[in-house]
Amino acid sequence: MATRRLTFVTGNANKLMETKYILSQGIPIEIDSQDLDIPELQGTTQEVAIAKSRRAAELLGRACITEDTALCYEAFGGLPGPYIKHFMKNIGHEGLNNLLVGFPTKDAYALCTFAYSAGPGAEPILFEGRTDGTIVPARGPPTFGWDAVFQPKGFDKTYAEMTKEDKNVISHRYRALDKLKAYLSTLPT
Amino acid sequence: MATRRLTFVTGNANKLMETKYILSQGIPIEIDSQDLDIPELQGTTQEVAIAKSRRAAELLGRACITEDTALCYEAFGGLPGPYIKHFMKNIGHEGLNNLLVGFPTKDAYALCTFAYSAGPGAEPILFEGRTDGTIVPARGPPTFGWDAVFQPKGFDKTYAEMTKEDKNVISHRYRALDKLKAYLSTLPT
Repeated sequence: MATRRLTFVTGNANKLMETKYILSQGIPIEIDSQDLDIPELQGTTQEVAIAKSRRAAELLGRACITEDTALCYEAFGGLPGPYIKHFMKNIGHEGLNNLLVGFPTKDAYALCTFAYSAGPGAEPILFEGRTDGTIVPARGPPTFGWDAVFQPKGFDKTYAEMTKEDKNVISHRYRALDKLKAYLSTLPT
Repeated sequence: MATRRLTFVTGNANKLMETKYILSQGIPIEIDSQDLDIPELQGTTQEVAIAKSRRAAELLGRACITEDTALCYEAFGGLPGPYIKHFMKNIGHEGLNNLLVGFPTKDAYALCTFAYSAGPGAEPILFEGRTDGTIVPARGPPTFGWDAVFQPKGFDKTYAEMTKEDKNVISHRYRALDKLKAYLSTLPT
């Protein structure tokens, strides 16, 4: 079985490392990366992912994968969702909690969407991974996005407090990557 | 002086009527409209406006104007901003107030951005109008977006409670249109 090569369009070294690690377990694949400046759309997480995947394949001229992360508050009907990075940047961990003071539920879900494009003009295929949890006051290292305020259901630790191994098993990104890996393993090389 | 013709890219009959009315006062101009499906970007209000204007001029093949509205909470560093329509749709007037329960200021500003493009490939020119105010529990007819929860500074009425004439004088849209009108009057016909 020949080794497949695939480009992950990302400028995030952590995501690249995690993706390489998870995809390479079980299938012969080599992942390189390219950091492209692709404007993000407004819309549903699926619309955002499809637009980015299409544009990335056009710019690269070959098959590629892209990734999008959303943090969806139940009280807001799924928002901030794909706009979470703007809120994280402007109001930080404390603000992400304060948004919910006036609402009855702190439930939220983390959603990761990987998109695979076979190349320019091909219809992107989406792989979603979802992890349910609650928004809590920040605990653990505050360095990785909103990980410190997201506590997965059934756990007493936030993403930021978990070991990488524990987080990987239940994380939204892992769940999406697992589906992507299953799909890639069915493709002819 | 010949009458200029210009296309306003919008599907909103209210905005079209208001824009026609304000622009036609003082300059000889005829505004038609076209409803194009243009995906909106994430980003600053200026980035969102520029991208929409460029795309509209490409699709139309001629000069046009586009409009974007944002509602910017001081406590959120300007967010929801261009994403306000998604929040309005998901959590309504009560939710727009509840977002601020955990924050010390209810101050907000309404921002209207008109973009003028001279045609495909031309750099869009932006005209911003801003009105400062406060987010309050809804008062007045709830029919026009978030007008019922925005009370301009120095007034005891919300946008929704004001007469059209009173609102026009101080509204973010009027202020942007006034700048656009001044610019259009300098162009050779």
